[in-house]
Amino acid sequence: MKQYKVGLVGIGAVGTEMVKVLRQRKFPASEIRILATRERDEEVAGETFHVLEAKPEAFDGLDIVLFAGTEGSKGASKQFGWEAVKRGAVVIDNGDDYRMDDRVPLVIPEINPEALDRHQGFIANPNCSTIITLMGIAPLHKQVPLRHMTAVTFQSVSGTGRTAIEELEQQARAYATGDAMAVNTYPHQIAFNVLPHIDSFLDTGYTKEEMKMVNETKKIMEDDSIAVTATTVRVPVFYGHSESVNIEFEREMTPDMARKLLKKAPGIKVVDDPAKNKYPLAIDAAGKDDTYVGRIRIDDTVKYGLNMWIVADNIRKGAALNAVQIAEALIKKYL
Amino acid sequence: MKQYKVGLVGIGAVGTEMVKVLRQRKFPASEIRILATRERDEEVAGETFHVLEAKPEAFDGLDIVLFAGTEGSKGASKQFGWEAVKRGAVVIDNGDDYRMDDRVPLVIPEINPEALDRHQGFIANPNCSTIITLMGIAPLHKQVPLRHMTAVTFQSVSGTGRTAIEELEQQARAYATGDAMAVNTYPHQIAFNVLPHIDSFLDTGYTKEEMKMVNETKKIMEDDSIAVTATTVRVPVFYGHSESVNIEFEREMTPDMARKLLKKAPGIKVVDDPAKNKYPLAIDAAGKDDTYVGRIRIDDTVKYGLNMWIVADNIRKGAALNAVQIAEALIKKYL
Repeated sequence: MKQYKVGLVGIGAVGTEMVKVLRQRKFPASEIRILATRERDEEVAGETFHVLEAKPEAFDGLDIVLFAGTEGSKGASKQFGWEAVKRGAVVIDNGDDYRMDDRVPLVIPEINPEALDRHQGFIANPNCSTIITLMGIAPLHKQVPLRHMTAVTFQSVSGTGRTAIEELEQQARAYATGDAMAVNTYPHQIAFNVLPHIDSFLDTGYTKEEMKMVNETKKIMEDDSIAVTATTVRVPVFYGHSESVNIEFEREMTPDMARKLLKKAPGIKVVDDPAKNKYPLAIDAAGKDDTYVGRIRIDDTVKYGLNMWIVADNIRKGAALNAVQIAEALIKKYL
Repeated sequence: MKQYKVGLVGIGAVGTEMVKVLRQRKFPASEIRILATRERDEEVAGETFHVLEAKPEAFDGLDIVLFAGTEGSKGASKQFGWEAVKRGAVVIDNGDDYRMDDRVPLVIPEINPEALDRHQGFIANPNCSTIITLMGIAPLHKQVPLRHMTAVTFQSVSGTGRTAIEELEQQARAYATGDAMAVNTYPHQIAFNVLPHIDSFLDTGYTKEEMKMVNETKKIMEDDSIAVTATTVRVPVFYGHSESVNIEFEREMTPDMARKLLKKAPGIKVVDDPAKNKYPLAIDAAGKDDTYVGRIRIDDTVKYGLNMWIVADNIRKGAALNAVQIAEALIKKYL
């Protein structure tokens, strides 16, 4: 089997998970070269890596480069992405700097792998909450077109990165011991609270995170007529984004039809037996690859409506796993 | 000033808060008689009460009786409510057994005090999440009729009662100390998780909690044509329900119009300066009387739409305060 030299820029929560996913899936990597702000030895996901300083020459010889930027992070991909392409690599960027760029396919391999046909060496990973939502609704949309979606998210702190995980941990411990909570990563306490604020605010009153859901959905579905409105909210959960999704279709889509379509869809598990207290939960999705869908029910306030509850691990399917799946699709067909 | 003999049935989280609110607002009570499952002395909100056993004779002589049932609780009001009315009291029931009863007005004093005109001795307090939502949208609806609402809630554990508060505390401590989490009150761990499950499930796939939002909204607004769909979710927050509300009006309602109307509305504070990280938060609303509204922005996916974020203390405005305000409105006009 052909082996590939894989670069990985950034080793926060997502970068670490990328190493784990590459190893778990036995990605044919003859080298995993980790690049970060400075050279050092560091243990990542149980292996010791000699981390190199990210600079143009450091990308020489690589076949695939994963940029591990998280929610709203100012991506290293802006500095080095196209440089890596110039030096011969295909870039897969988890950050949000190039997602809406016309040169850049925005790909969820289970949903729009064909978008890779048009790649120019640079591919973007969609935002975590967009990936998770679309995993749950694209299989339905392929059968009956989606017309309108109101998405409300319950996003875990790991989406922000390691400092946020530590901040929630510190605040939870401080609560237990009666100590003061440190509030640094978020503008307000996140433990025992919810923040209707992810990424920065635009003049319209929407956050950038909310507009990612709106714009990325249209790009991935290749349909600008899908109307999307979103409210994205941070909740005191470590791993796993949960999403309440209200959707309106062009024609009838019953809960039974939806369950049947989702059961056949790759990467999806239907967990929908509320009488037995079975519905998707963040704590169950944490560390898993699948996206979980449940609470599928008719919304009879519109002609053809459904309400659904979709949950997945934002660091895995919402970021690292999806990026590695893009790399797998690439080497199967193009590299 | 005329004084009233006030009965109070149940001294969980809501009953305790009712005592506090009666005292804070200097309710003209010559007696507060607490009734519960068995006779005993108990300290409630800093006072020692001789609690009596709830039985028919125990209601004799009372002018007003507050039943303090919480979310989904099997109300004592079912056993003793109409009995208390027969014995001369006016009943205000926080439970959900009689809210949709045609004999029973369902009242938020800032919104539909006139419904008290038709009272037959028994008045219901709406569900916590309904009160909080309607506090934020009724002032707009009075100006421009509401046509459609998609409500998604982030409800705190205090809505379930004292055992749930203790369960979240225990789980948070267990996390900090590495001990096992006890899972008793909810079917799943609530710390660091979110549960799309409040009250019990119906065959339609909706929870009773979700249908309270649908049905109570129509009754309070006296308009069956308002289309409401809801997803109600429990979050690991102690006090304060947060709600993402997507609303569609019959005619134009701009964010500026909405802010102006809400600023004039009693019991409402507009907190809407996202550029300065100012938006309503559960931890800020806890212990307060007002309902906080923010993140008011146009939803341009429908003709006349807005998205809003509404937060209030579910135990105060969502329950105890609203019930005491009903009592105040009653004595002003009817007793």
